[in-house]
Amino acid sequence: MTRRRRIYEGKAKILYEGPEPGTLIQHFKDDATAFNAKKHEIVDGKGVLNNRISEYIFNHLNAMGIPTHFIRALNMREQLIREVEIIPLEMVVRNVAAGSLSQRLGIEEGTPLPRSIIEFYYKNDELGDPMVSEEHITAFGWASPQEIDDMMSLAIRVNDFLSGLFLGVGIRLVDFKMECGRLWENDLMRIVVADEISPDSCRLWDIETNNKLDKDRFRRDMGGMLEAYQEVARRLGLINANERVTGSGPVLVQ
Amino acid sequence: MTRRRRIYEGKAKILYEGPEPGTLIQHFKDDATAFNAKKHEIVDGKGVLNNRISEYIFNHLNAMGIPTHFIRALNMREQLIREVEIIPLEMVVRNVAAGSLSQRLGIEEGTPLPRSIIEFYYKNDELGDPMVSEEHITAFGWASPQEIDDMMSLAIRVNDFLSGLFLGVGIRLVDFKMECGRLWENDLMRIVVADEISPDSCRLWDIETNNKLDKDRFRRDMGGMLEAYQEVARRLGLINANERVTGSGPVLVQ
Ligand SMILES: Nc1ncnc2c1ncn2[C@@H]1O[C@H](COP(=O)(O)OP(=O)(O)OP(=O)(O)O)[C@@H](O)[C@H]1O
Ligand SMILES: Nc1ncnc2c1ncn2[C@@H]1O[C@H](COP(=O)(O)OP(=O)(O)OP(=O)(O)O)[C@@H](O)[C@H]1O
Ligand SMILES: [Mg+2]
Ligand SMILES: [Mg+2]
Repeated sequence: MTRRRRIYEGKAKILYEGPEPGTLIQHFKDDATAFNAKKHEIVDGKGVLNNRISEYIFNHLNAMGIPTHFIRALNMREQLIREVEIIPLEMVVRNVAAGSLSQRLGIEEGTPLPRSIIEFYYKNDELGDPMVSEEHITAFGWASPQEIDDMMSLAIRVNDFLSGLFLGVGIRLVDFKMECGRLWENDLMRIVVADEISPDSCRLWDIETNNKLDKDRFRRDMGGMLEAYQEVARRLGLINANERVTGSGPVLVQ
Repeated sequence: MTRRRRIYEGKAKILYEGPEPGTLIQHFKDDATAFNAKKHEIVDGKGVLNNRISEYIFNHLNAMGIPTHFIRALNMREQLIREVEIIPLEMVVRNVAAGSLSQRLGIEEGTPLPRSIIEFYYKNDELGDPMVSEEHITAFGWASPQEIDDMMSLAIRVNDFLSGLFLGVGIRLVDFKMECGRLWENDLMRIVVADEISPDSCRLWDIETNNKLDKDRFRRDMGGMLEAYQEVARRLGLINANERVTGSGPVLVQ
């Protein structure tokens, strides 16, 4: 393999220069982090699972006409994506109260929300990703009112699709995080879904047992993180019942 | 004086039943509190000053056609107001970075904002008045989108007036807190400005020296709170240069 130029290394992924201008290779690492990286572990095989799940979701979003950065799968840990100008906002779409919303507004975890709520957080690790409103976003020029509208429309469509997809495999989509970016094509700018959608960035509860199948297993020291991610991949039909995912990919178990 | 029915006692004010249905008497106490009442002191004369300053501002707002709950002054600590259904949101209008905005977004205190920013906080002492966005407000039904629009229009008008008023007396209006309520008249509902506007609820900096003339003197243990509030009243022409305000009202100083 020829040496590739590394553009950015984050907590969970590495971005490499892609084969053509305007493309990148998104590489999924096995690093699990929480609380702004104060908590950090290596979970063998997590990157493989997140890459596979995210690739599956983004492929479907593209097919449905929801614009994303995703071009195609490359290998077990990597995907080819379009380089975008990331909007420095994390959107959180919530269907059921959990996590910081429960704490801040005093609503018990698991309480269905009167309607889906879209929150914005300013992407800034030093500041701990503070929650912001449209007022801050437009005043500081992080996104225009039109861009906010576009992002919210995308978030609603993605939430509709993901809610259905997970419901179909016996999982409740409690909430998820989404990032968007600006993509220029022939002087035309579009907002597209970027980054990843995986058990790292969603809250996924088994519909019968409320068993958590997401990163909260890691955040809350519950154990069984990899098993939970495998279960999600298995229910989505991405690995077989007799497969287990390791750092070097799925292996058969007898 | 006949005994009056007390409707509500808060941290800084008491509401009594008014002389006519639909009216209340708003009584200003000398209690200074901060950090959700974890810090508490009695500052002799503060209530007199806040009542006088707030009365002055609300009178002018009414005269300019900005609807408020204020009817008329009653005495040194009390004013007659219309009873409204308080919307459980505190609006903070910011012109210059300070306080929690500076901390949350990492912007040095005193930095002028690119434009005025309106923030909403959910009025709930138990939860520590968490910041919320329009999404939370409409999802939980605390106010309708139309009401949010009306509140923001009021907030902009009040900010314009107060910015000018204070500028005229050599004070920069850094930010202020505002509450709104629903007022019904012949089956018609209007949003009006309620509660108080005073050095307790504003950040006021001397334009030359940046000297703080507001509650931050108390929050930050700077001392000279009453003197600062007196200075604001003096500049607004509400007390004379040779007067000092005590718990029982202004007295002459030789
Ligand atoms: N299509 C894209 N073009 C450019 N950058 C992208 C694209 N998709 C995702 N990114 C960015 O690549 C980085 C992915 O790395 P990773 O998720 O590990 O970062 P991180 O450490 O979590 O930091 P962050 O808090 O910024 O997500 C993120 O900063 C993400 O915003
Ligand atoms: N016109 C009005 N009609 C009814 N209630 C009002 C009106 N104006 C103000 N209020 C309410 O009266 C109370 C005033 O008391 P005070 O400001 O001392 O309360 P507080 O202890 O600060 O609590 P809060 O956090 O609710 O302001 C507030 O709850 C305020 O919302
Ligand atoms: Mg990330
Ligand atoms: Mg109050």
